[in-house]
Amino acid sequence: MLYARNCWYVAGWSYQVETGQPFPMQILGDRLVLFRTSSGQMVALEDRCVHRLAPLSLGRCEGEGLRCMYHGMLFDAAGTVIEIPGQSLIPPNAKVRSYPVVERDSWIWVWMGDAAAADEAAIPRSRSLDDPDYILRHGWLDYDAEAQLINDNLLDFSHLSFVHANSFNLGADPAATQAKVTQLENGIRYARWMEGLPTNGAGLPDTPADSFMGYDFLIPGVLVMNISSWPLGTAAKLDYAEPADHSRAFRDCTFSGQAVTPMADRKARYFFSIGPHRNQGDETIADLMFKMVETAFDEDKRMIEAQQKVIDETPDMRIMPTAHDRTVTMFNAKVARLARGDAQARESALA
Amino acid sequence: MLYARNCWYVAGWSYQVETGQPFPMQILGDRLVLFRTSSGQMVALEDRCVHRLAPLSLGRCEGEGLRCMYHGMLFDAAGTVIEIPGQSLIPPNAKVRSYPVVERDSWIWVWMGDAAAADEAAIPRSRSLDDPDYILRHGWLDYDAEAQLINDNLLDFSHLSFVHANSFNLGADPAATQAKVTQLENGIRYARWMEGLPTNGAGLPDTPADSFMGYDFLIPGVLVMNISSWPLGTAAKLDYAEPADHSRAFRDCTFSGQAVTPMADRKARYFFSIGPHRNQGDETIADLMFKMVETAFDEDKRMIEAQQKVIDETPDMRIMPTAHDRTVTMFNAKVARLARGDAQARESALA
Amino acid sequence: MLYARNCWYVAGWSYQVETGQPFPMQILGDRLVLFRTSSGQMVALEDRCVHRLAPLSLGRCEGEGLRCMYHGMLFDAAGTVIEIPGQSLIPPNAKVRSYPVVERDSWIWVWMGDAAAADEAAIPRSRSLDDPDYILRHGWLDYDAEAQLINDNLLDFSHLSFVHANSFNLGADPAATQAKVTQLENGIRYARWMEGLPTNGAGLPDTPADSFMGYDFLIPGVLVMNISSWPLGTAAKLDYAEPADHSRAFRDCTFSGQAVTPMADRKARYFFSIGPHRNQGDETIADLMFKMVETAFDEDKRMIEAQQKVIDETPDMRIMPTAHDRTVTMFNAKVARLARGDAQARESALA
Repeated sequence: MLYARNCWYVAGWSYQVETGQPFPMQILGDRLVLFRTSSGQMVALEDRCVHRLAPLSLGRCEGEGLRCMYHGMLFDAAGTVIEIPGQSLIPPNAKVRSYPVVERDSWIWVWMGDAAAADEAAIPRSRSLDDPDYILRHGWLDYDAEAQLINDNLLDFSHLSFVHANSFNLGADPAATQAKVTQLENGIRYARWMEGLPTNGAGLPDTPADSFMGYDFLIPGVLVMNISSWPLGTAAKLDYAEPADHSRAFRDCTFSGQAVTPMADRKARYFFSIGPHRNQGDETIADLMFKMVETAFDEDKRMIEAQQKVIDETPDMRIMPTAHDRTVTMFNAKVARLARGDAQARESALA
Repeated sequence: MLYARNCWYVAGWSYQVETGQPFPMQILGDRLVLFRTSSGQMVALEDRCVHRLAPLSLGRCEGEGLRCMYHGMLFDAAGTVIEIPGQSLIPPNAKVRSYPVVERDSWIWVWMGDAAAADEAAIPRSRSLDDPDYILRHGWLDYDAEAQLINDNLLDFSHLSFVHANSFNLGADPAATQAKVTQLENGIRYARWMEGLPTNGAGLPDTPADSFMGYDFLIPGVLVMNISSWPLGTAAKLDYAEPADHSRAFRDCTFSGQAVTPMADRKARYFFSIGPHRNQGDETIADLMFKMVETAFDEDKRMIEAQQKVIDETPDMRIMPTAHDRTVTMFNAKVARLARGDAQARESALA
Repeated sequence: MLYARNCWYVAGWSYQVETGQPFPMQILGDRLVLFRTSSGQMVALEDRCVHRLAPLSLGRCEGEGLRCMYHGMLFDAAGTVIEIPGQSLIPPNAKVRSYPVVERDSWIWVWMGDAAAADEAAIPRSRSLDDPDYILRHGWLDYDAEAQLINDNLLDFSHLSFVHANSFNLGADPAATQAKVTQLENGIRYARWMEGLPTNGAGLPDTPADSFMGYDFLIPGVLVMNISSWPLGTAAKLDYAEPADHSRAFRDCTFSGQAVTPMADRKARYFFSIGPHRNQGDETIADLMFKMVETAFDEDKRMIEAQQKVIDETPDMRIMPTAHDRTVTMFNAKVARLARGDAQARESALA
């Protein structure tokens, strides 16, 4: 599978990295250690001591630095060794790679490419877990599968009619008709009206409504979704455009932020938050919604991990794209273009 | 290891594939999905959707077809896609491989080779679980070992004196002397008289008797065995020929049908039934006999899986055949000949 | 990693191999079966029957021999087949490799190289578990890591200040200053005085003392250690030389014998004994000391197995040796020299 390096990947929820407690993570095969220094700075270093390759994530936070707890090398926040026990001289190349890291919208974002090219403006925007307008639940799942297969899943919502036939209970619509899809510079935009949908945002039978579901799916694998339900006839009245203000919906105004991080070959972590707008839901509805979503995400995981196993045993992997795969193809082409850019940047740097 | 494709393999017990419930199986590395349609037809398809390679065994039976539950492709019993949600055109090559399949003697038999060459007459005959003459118990075991090692085990009963020294309790005879072995077109025939055997068919001490044990071992790996015990002197009186009618024995008339299916590298499934003739045993004896056999089959599995591990770590695998290995050599030569025939058939088809 | 074959490896504690019970072990990738014959002889054979490669460790001890319990080949203590059931002729090459084996100091030592070169005088000396002067506890741990990483750990005691910061509680000293290291023909000798150490040999706060810790680390991976504590000022008075008689110490006179055996790739077994001199400790102190050591050895295992994982994922393994690594470098150079000698011996044997 093909991934780009010159972009921001979610390494975890901000609260997962506590002051004084090194946090191991793997992204694109690189082992990272994240830690928060005494002064509160978030740091991401290569998780591999220069001395004998012990993981720094088994180390000890000391002030603004991190000490390897095998033989005691002390690293500063830039990854430079600043103390070698029993030895006064420190070799100038005694350092590990340091990764640009930013905390935003409750996520820790790590730039995996050339540090000089790191641009915070390229971080996709989601909503914080403490967003004042929404009651958000959150979690994460580890997959024994390629991140790209999870991206593909999220880019083709026709699977809602089958994988989630019982959990989301949306009927044939997501598969039977095409959504409105537009290209974004850094991803794609998906928009669908389901007219006369007989269930509400918690998947329960309710007054039929016109229900809108739309998301941006952004490089490298971030989904930012809004859902809202409106009186019958609204879809046609709006000419099937996205509602201007979801919070003014009839009911079901819901936000979900999701991110897929490729950890290593056939290994990925899937982060997600979801919840109702405070005007249109309460803690009980947030719980019901999250329970439904957890069921649905287990359904995805079961299918995708099984798909990965079949792929692994299929020497000549041919797929047969359908009309719904247009979004998958669009997005993966953007990723491929960015990944090729990475390769060219490396080549011109070497030339 | 070498296996032939142009033959019938046991995929399961007939009752394991219930109407409406797809059943996954692996044979010779191919992933299959078996299902029974509404009209009762047994179907075996490649377990890999043409769209994005999800397993069809996670799908849903619909009438005479099977629907992939990832994005909803519907397949008919011949493996042809007959519906793609959200798309009217169906590409002509949208089909998966369909395998000839037959139910006989309580087993599901799948032909793994060229479908045009599938010949039902080549299916080895065993006895159904509901055979009116026998009280049969049955089961299966999954091995982390090559099917051929299990075949080899079943082709050389000298192991009964050692692996099953305590369970079958047959003494030195099976290893100390040679059985009478004859060639069959599709396998070998093994016949042994044990004179004055002091145990009965449930492995318990009993009046000494002349006991006959004989089996056909048939391509690709099917054992069909008859046992019967007779008054002392019978073996010599019959000049060590097989008794004409086992059901007229003194006691212990027993049938066993067994089949070994190579699933993938170092992975095999071993199916077995065993039980006394109704004239010579009852449910209690059937239970005792099956308990003994389950113990013995666990002994085989422990030895063969350990043997497989040693083989895996032995770069230059030389074996030292003994006199008892004659049957092993005979049978494997027949399999090799058939497998070579497969290869030649492929070549002339391509020429 | 690089290991020498022409040396003695610990295969187990002597008592682990009971008369009549075959004992499987792996050394340098070779599968061995050890057994003790009726007359008490310890035997080490290749654990792989010549017939069909079943493991002999699933076999049955018979007198001075071992019978394979698959099809009954009987081997004598030299590894020669002396009986094949159902066959009178025994091929002259029907034998498995036999390894020189010696029991000494409660350990079973196996020579993995050219049998003609096996020299019992090269076996490192430790102390028996029933040594009259010491109360020894013992155990072993299996590592998912290369033996060499455990050797490296034992050759650089600067890790005591970090890995065992809480368990051994020795402070900064082992890392902050260099020990006195001397070369031995078959290893290295390490000696360190810790002046004014405020803890005793069980890791508990006690009257400050000058504490000596010294060990020989011998090819292929055997540590023989003495510890003793003396009145303040003793270290300087002895000019930092090793005390002549540890048993005359103030307190804490302790012995530990340890051995690291490479089993296979990333697989090693670590044997250890430790305990106080009878004059300076009792069963309670022996228990306290062993409990501390078990905690510490778990700390080592956690660090080294994590280090192994990082190494496995590091394509270009560069390390950055420190001043403390002098002993590691010395010792590994000796092993490399011996291993090269093995290769040359093989070559001249073939020439």
